[in-house]
Amino acid sequence: MTTRIVVLGGGFGGAFTAKRLSRRFEGDASVEISLVNRENYFVFQPMLPEVAAGAIEPSQIANPLRRMLPGVRFYSSEVESIDTVARQVHIGAGDRKHLRSLPYDHLVLALGTIVDLSSLPGLAEHSLALKNIGDAFYLRNHVIGCLEQADIETDADHRRAATTFVVIGGGFSGVETIGELQEMVDLVLPHYRNIRPEDVRFVLVHSQARILPEVVPGLGEYAADELRRRGIEILLNVKCKAATAEHVFLSDGTTLATRTLISTVGNAPNPLLKTLPCPLSRGRIATDATLSVTGYPGLWALGDNAAVPMADGTTYAPTAQNAIRQAHTCADNIVAAIRGGAPKPFVFGGLGKLASLGARSAVAEILGFRIKGFLAWWLWRTIYLLKLPGLERQVRVALDWTLDLLFQRNIVQLKVFRTEKVDRAHFEPGEAIVSEGEIGDRFYVIETGRVEVVRQGGAEPSRLATLGAGEYFGEVALLRDLARTATVRALEPTDVISIGRGDFAAFARNLAALRASFEESLGRRLADAEVR
Amino acid sequence: MTTRIVVLGGGFGGAFTAKRLSRRFEGDASVEISLVNRENYFVFQPMLPEVAAGAIEPSQIANPLRRMLPGVRFYSSEVESIDTVARQVHIGAGDRKHLRSLPYDHLVLALGTIVDLSSLPGLAEHSLALKNIGDAFYLRNHVIGCLEQADIETDADHRRAATTFVVIGGGFSGVETIGELQEMVDLVLPHYRNIRPEDVRFVLVHSQARILPEVVPGLGEYAADELRRRGIEILLNVKCKAATAEHVFLSDGTTLATRTLISTVGNAPNPLLKTLPCPLSRGRIATDATLSVTGYPGLWALGDNAAVPMADGTTYAPTAQNAIRQAHTCADNIVAAIRGGAPKPFVFGGLGKLASLGARSAVAEILGFRIKGFLAWWLWRTIYLLKLPGLERQVRVALDWTLDLLFQRNIVQLKVFRTEKVDRAHFEPGEAIVSEGEIGDRFYVIETGRVEVVRQGGAEPSRLATLGAGEYFGEVALLRDLARTATVRALEPTDVISIGRGDFAAFARNLAALRASFEESLGRRLADAEVR
Repeated sequence: MTTRIVVLGGGFGGAFTAKRLSRRFEGDASVEISLVNRENYFVFQPMLPEVAAGAIEPSQIANPLRRMLPGVRFYSSEVESIDTVARQVHIGAGDRKHLRSLPYDHLVLALGTIVDLSSLPGLAEHSLALKNIGDAFYLRNHVIGCLEQADIETDADHRRAATTFVVIGGGFSGVETIGELQEMVDLVLPHYRNIRPEDVRFVLVHSQARILPEVVPGLGEYAADELRRRGIEILLNVKCKAATAEHVFLSDGTTLATRTLISTVGNAPNPLLKTLPCPLSRGRIATDATLSVTGYPGLWALGDNAAVPMADGTTYAPTAQNAIRQAHTCADNIVAAIRGGAPKPFVFGGLGKLASLGARSAVAEILGFRIKGFLAWWLWRTIYLLKLPGLERQVRVALDWTLDLLFQRNIVQLKVFRTEKVDRAHFEPGEAIVSEGEIGDRFYVIETGRVEVVRQGGAEPSRLATLGAGEYFGEVALLRDLARTATVRALEPTDVISIGRGDFAAFARNLAALRASFEESLGRRLADAEVR
Repeated sequence: MTTRIVVLGGGFGGAFTAKRLSRRFEGDASVEISLVNRENYFVFQPMLPEVAAGAIEPSQIANPLRRMLPGVRFYSSEVESIDTVARQVHIGAGDRKHLRSLPYDHLVLALGTIVDLSSLPGLAEHSLALKNIGDAFYLRNHVIGCLEQADIETDADHRRAATTFVVIGGGFSGVETIGELQEMVDLVLPHYRNIRPEDVRFVLVHSQARILPEVVPGLGEYAADELRRRGIEILLNVKCKAATAEHVFLSDGTTLATRTLISTVGNAPNPLLKTLPCPLSRGRIATDATLSVTGYPGLWALGDNAAVPMADGTTYAPTAQNAIRQAHTCADNIVAAIRGGAPKPFVFGGLGKLASLGARSAVAEILGFRIKGFLAWWLWRTIYLLKLPGLERQVRVALDWTLDLLFQRNIVQLKVFRTEKVDRAHFEPGEAIVSEGEIGDRFYVIETGRVEVVRQGGAEPSRLATLGAGEYFGEVALLRDLARTATVRALEPTDVISIGRGDFAAFARNLAALRASFEESLGRRLADAEVR
């Protein structure tokens, strides 16, 4: 019988667990390893600020999981739910979004964290994150776009707002991001003749008394001095209170006019964890020292979504180093559980800490030594290059870095976002627009044409209604969170406009006229459905 | 007095005209050259299929116009309107989208073409174009996404549809695109273990009797044989009739189930040309042989948006070669007009034609010679590399091509599109959500909070209304195409959701309940406005 191991998440924890498992079980046909991740690539997160600053290309810090893990079955999908009783994971499969079940004997939870800024008004809508490659790509193009706008802008206040860049959070991520961005803007500014260098502001907002609380005080202060020397303003003991499209409001009463607010705070556990029956510690899965979840044999957790106990009673910090080492321990303990053997506890002291400040400067704490400036920067670059998974990526990043020394920084602003926010779709007669039993995630308004609403009752399908231009459908599944209760099929060439679940909810909640109309028709349609 | 030359468009025609003008007028402070383009980069369009197939990175065929044209004032903006009487161009400036005027003595129209597929039902919504870098980037990620979906899909029909790729148009662009994409899919397919190679279909749909009508028959047939040898189906004398999200309908009655329809047809003139008083020839600006528009001194046109007469009574084809040579003639004739001298007519015979077929094969017709296969491919690559503007780009593309020979093709699927289609925004008290006199392009619904609607009447601003949760504003400017008639300002912390002009139009046109409500309130609000 096949033993099935399912790993959820393709970050440092999940990808490296799957990698080690596939090595340990190489040639063993009795074990099947699967990995589920929304994106089809592993991203080397420590280098996201480099991508945001255009020093390296986005795809070069992304490693396709299929290539990284050739012995592993890979599913590029969201995890919809986890059933620890039936021992199954449900994922959304294919473009029709029906559910598919993956049964497991061992389940590894490596879901990382999400960003939750809901406690700060406006921050979720008006700040940019730096969690994945899409974010970094967007941020780079946004910053270049701000310079383009400022160069053309005739109003001095608007121009200054466009060239004011605010970063919230003075930890590793915030410091690296502001350092890299300042370097980029400094390098490309000569191309923007209408922007005065003194109008460009970089502001780092930090809630504690010194930046880089992760390293020893001396290095944090060195970093602060270095950033200040380059003109970056550092506001200490200040928090962000609220944000709008044009302003950031701080706890000391300051208001900054800006078009660019980058938030590196607000990391929160994946909401899926709350649906599990096992105990949580501050939102994270509580494991024992062997990374196993007590009382749930076959359930493992590691990385940022796990609370792994340390000898001193605290838990391990959510860092890439810890996740990589935990991945080895977790994989080895799963091998022991399957083949027999004693599980080993996870113990790791950490090797060191590195933070780039941009402009060929960095701070480092490695095996007890403190290093700063160019040497630290060189070390940072070399160590990260060696850590990048895959020779190809190492070569490409090394080349990019070399070219960056030789050539000017790229100022191409790539706009790849669709500007129209509602999807239009066309259907020919006989085509199903929605199908009974599917998970509903869109709402439709008929622009032209006619459709029939049919349901498979017993042997014969029954026609519930025909709808024409100006009428709508699809709201039952969205309002009641059900699978589609009927099939809607075009009777003639039909054009529809549609919006997704999130937008629909926002509209339905707020537009009084629409809501009344929906509620009325929903009552009627649900009553109809029950009669038949 | 300064002579002002304004160039509209940053493609081959516009960018190369501006480049030559800035060389000819170097050091001459009496002449000011400006260029307006929506994107801040020049794109080397012939290489878009390479980008779509992941052989080179998107930013490497994009050259920042500011860097390419250091002596030219650059405006990254849409052209809103052209006033040939007042001799001014109006552009949208900065993020508030107010208008800015650029006066000119000489105006060069190099606006290229747009894609207009409105005559074919569903094609505009459901086909992908390949006109700019965003398109190529999107297409590459879409194709990889289809493979990810097919690999996970349990329904055989859906799986086959996901691996069926249809290209409309058998000219240069269509042939290169299908050739490059087939090569990419072929290279990455071993990573997708659940996709059977026989399920992958590539179909080229062409309305004429042979593909590549631009070259001599022998080469077109060689190309067709080569593509067929690699398994690409070629449908000749067939047109596309309609498209939906799931099917393409052809003129011979065939229906193809596909998720990927790429259209390389439907090039149409820029709609701005219709607003000009000068004569058009099939939608394009009619020029004389010197690229001047007869009867409009100082108005010039070239490239794809111009009908430039040839000696035989026809006009020059819309190719990059012609545009580049026309740019030289146009710039020289403007210099002659300013400094004195006779303008020269544009005469060019063409150097040759090159089309890559992917998989290291191509066809070429150069100075009368016909070349095919690997040698033609090598020539194609070398010539295009030499034509790429800028040493940096040449080095980067050459490196990418070399790495492509050494390493596997990248299968990272970058999703950078926002999934939520409606924007939410937060405002603090006193902030203006819309401002009187601005160009209106969004419609707002208040989620929480309260706003006031005020207008600058005479000396004192007057408050027209206060609005609260569930109420909306911003529709007057959108429905009547006016500037904002009033300022709306938050009275307390306010959250709004907003949609853009296009989406709003779609909703307002179609939702009966909404429309009635808008019309009623519009009547009231316009009446209010007139009374005051």
